[in-house]
Amino acid sequence: MPVEFKQKTLSNGLTIIAEGDGDAHSSAAGFFIKTGARDESPELMGVSHYLEHMMFKGSDSISAEEINQRFDALGARNNAYTTHEVTCYYAQVLPEKLAPTIDLLGTMLRPALRTDDFDTEKSVIIEEIAMYKDNPFWVLYEECCDRHYVKHPLGHRVLGTEDTVGRLSAEQMRAYFDNRYSADNTTLALAGRVDFDAVCDQVESLCGGWQRTGASRDSAKPNLGSPDFVVHDERINRAYMLMLADAPAIDDDRRYAAQLLAQILGEPGNSRLHWALIETGIAEEAQAAFDPHDGVGQYFVYASGDPERADEIWAAAEKEIKSLPDAVTEDELERLRAKLATAVMLGGERPSDRMQRLGRLWTYLGRYTTLDEELERINAVTVDDVKEVYGAFAFEPRTFGKLLP
Amino acid sequence: MPVEFKQKTLSNGLTIIAEGDGDAHSSAAGFFIKTGARDESPELMGVSHYLEHMMFKGSDSISAEEINQRFDALGARNNAYTTHEVTCYYAQVLPEKLAPTIDLLGTMLRPALRTDDFDTEKSVIIEEIAMYKDNPFWVLYEECCDRHYVKHPLGHRVLGTEDTVGRLSAEQMRAYFDNRYSADNTTLALAGRVDFDAVCDQVESLCGGWQRTGASRDSAKPNLGSPDFVVHDERINRAYMLMLADAPAIDDDRRYAAQLLAQILGEPGNSRLHWALIETGIAEEAQAAFDPHDGVGQYFVYASGDPERADEIWAAAEKEIKSLPDAVTEDELERLRAKLATAVMLGGERPSDRMQRLGRLWTYLGRYTTLDEELERINAVTVDDVKEVYGAFAFEPRTFGKLLP
Repeated sequence: MPVEFKQKTLSNGLTIIAEGDGDAHSSAAGFFIKTGARDESPELMGVSHYLEHMMFKGSDSISAEEINQRFDALGARNNAYTTHEVTCYYAQVLPEKLAPTIDLLGTMLRPALRTDDFDTEKSVIIEEIAMYKDNPFWVLYEECCDRHYVKHPLGHRVLGTEDTVGRLSAEQMRAYFDNRYSADNTTLALAGRVDFDAVCDQVESLCGGWQRTGASRDSAKPNLGSPDFVVHDERINRAYMLMLADAPAIDDDRRYAAQLLAQILGEPGNSRLHWALIETGIAEEAQAAFDPHDGVGQYFVYASGDPERADEIWAAAEKEIKSLPDAVTEDELERLRAKLATAVMLGGERPSDRMQRLGRLWTYLGRYTTLDEELERINAVTVDDVKEVYGAFAFEPRTFGKLLP
Repeated sequence: MPVEFKQKTLSNGLTIIAEGDGDAHSSAAGFFIKTGARDESPELMGVSHYLEHMMFKGSDSISAEEINQRFDALGARNNAYTTHEVTCYYAQVLPEKLAPTIDLLGTMLRPALRTDDFDTEKSVIIEEIAMYKDNPFWVLYEECCDRHYVKHPLGHRVLGTEDTVGRLSAEQMRAYFDNRYSADNTTLALAGRVDFDAVCDQVESLCGGWQRTGASRDSAKPNLGSPDFVVHDERINRAYMLMLADAPAIDDDRRYAAQLLAQILGEPGNSRLHWALIETGIAEEAQAAFDPHDGVGQYFVYASGDPERADEIWAAAEKEIKSLPDAVTEDELERLRAKLATAVMLGGERPSDRMQRLGRLWTYLGRYTTLDEELERINAVTVDDVKEVYGAFAFEPRTFGKLLP
């Protein structure tokens, strides 16, 4: 790939990274703040996501309307999101619009956080929380996270609860902002056509005054696993079952093997769970995934179907999990390698996808890996590696929950 | 853009087109059959979509399982879709896998159409039809199409009805296939890294035996418009309102102005309908779009909200439609041009997107336009052009329907 990686850290700790490609016809920029639901104290649950909304309400120098108008005038495709571990503000634009786009994103990220706006936005957030309650999968997933991570904030709901968001004060949000949105907790990731030196000069003057706070994260591995549980909801018609289980963390070299293991077990359309549960008509949905976090990872196994057959469905899923070591063959890995090679390559085609990969990778690991290196790592995984990671984690500790009518 | 357009038509009429890019790291291929719900007689409604499903059931030389396994082994991202006007089978792969992928797609497209498979698949299709009945928007949209296009097959449901699919025989499907899936009704579109001459040789031997049938389409402009109607459904809680109205056809040069007009009226997030209905809290959803077809186009205007306020919502929408000429200003066009320029550029970044654009463009118009030419055409649209297309079509004839609890 004709891309060139560059990196610079400003004196206040803000890091700028780019995968520049002089042949690209677009540019992508994203500010990644290393903060999310896992960095909240229990009483602040939801503040990271709420703060993301507030970032669009304007600063002392720009109103909310002007932010919208300027993104429009730049022809930008822009958005933002909050997870347990990162909050990101990003845009894709034509290369000649990159500088004013970075200017706009950087300006937004020093918001006024007015109490009026805070109060108005609170009801929007609480409506958003209420909306999720109509989604059976989310209800079960959040309950399961809460129990699986015991009292650790990785079990937090990203949106918070009506109670925590309702009680949150503007002062608490401002204090969280001051600490977490610091220069040394922020990475600006760029991809596509980028004049790196010019961007560095621009960001120095735009963000050079941002404070360094030494904001950090507790990445120690939490206690995991809770007893099986059942939730009932009279409005639903089907049975939903979910298991979360221990898996390698994001900086664990066994993550590639864990990813392949999860695909063999539960990739949609062609996997052990698919053939055992869907093709046989036992369940309506059945899948598995691997999600690595800072300090800990998780396997996710999910199925839904007829409530009368709930026990049969989960017994069939457990059987597949137990027989996984027999399912891991060289043929199976070869099949997955072909799909992953395509996925990695397609992931490199768009500056916006490259920027996202780059920003998250740096925010999590503080280092750069090329797409080709990542593909090599995946291709190097052997049958023994996959069996070893299965043995080392063995889907324990775990938390299993059912949502039933 | 460093892409090169090439085209070749085989002696049986099958056309191969490519936007080759030697620097691309992936390749995309799609067979586009110029057939869909609008090419069905009333008693065959749904056969195009049903046939798309049957294409994955295997041929005399390959089983359904082998088709899945071979796509997997190629690491392909593949899929298919059916609309009113085109049926497409496509895949994205690494460049070295392009030849076997074309081979697999071409092989699939001469299916066995076994009566056993036909009977089994019929229940899958009928379940799919039943599923859509739970979606209020779809129920209203299909009813509105049916009435707006009077007795013309552009009003057909793509999935058909339980009745038409239920009565369909395997013989009828085979006859439809023999006529519509002919060499001269098929285009193979390619993008990304492509050895065009090698592909032409391959397709000559793969598809050279396909028959020419002279399959054609009735593209005469149909009679449009029906009286307002209301449908009631006791299971729903909100009011849904939809209007379809006459607009420029796909080969009408006024389509660029019509597209801008529809965006000014009802682009989600920032448009006349958005500011008048959503920001004021009158409606929950409100948007408009422009969809050009062969021989006729349509404006689509949609809103939903509180049933008690249904009349108020639609009156506010009508007011925005009537005042559109005043809303068309140079500033407004400039804002949209910036967004469209970005959209056009981003649409050119991935071989898979280029292949789709290329295949559909050729299938509809039988000609090639570069992305840059298309952008120039959009940028050249003036305020007068937009006012003129508004005057020429004026959202009449139209069909307006309400779905109420």
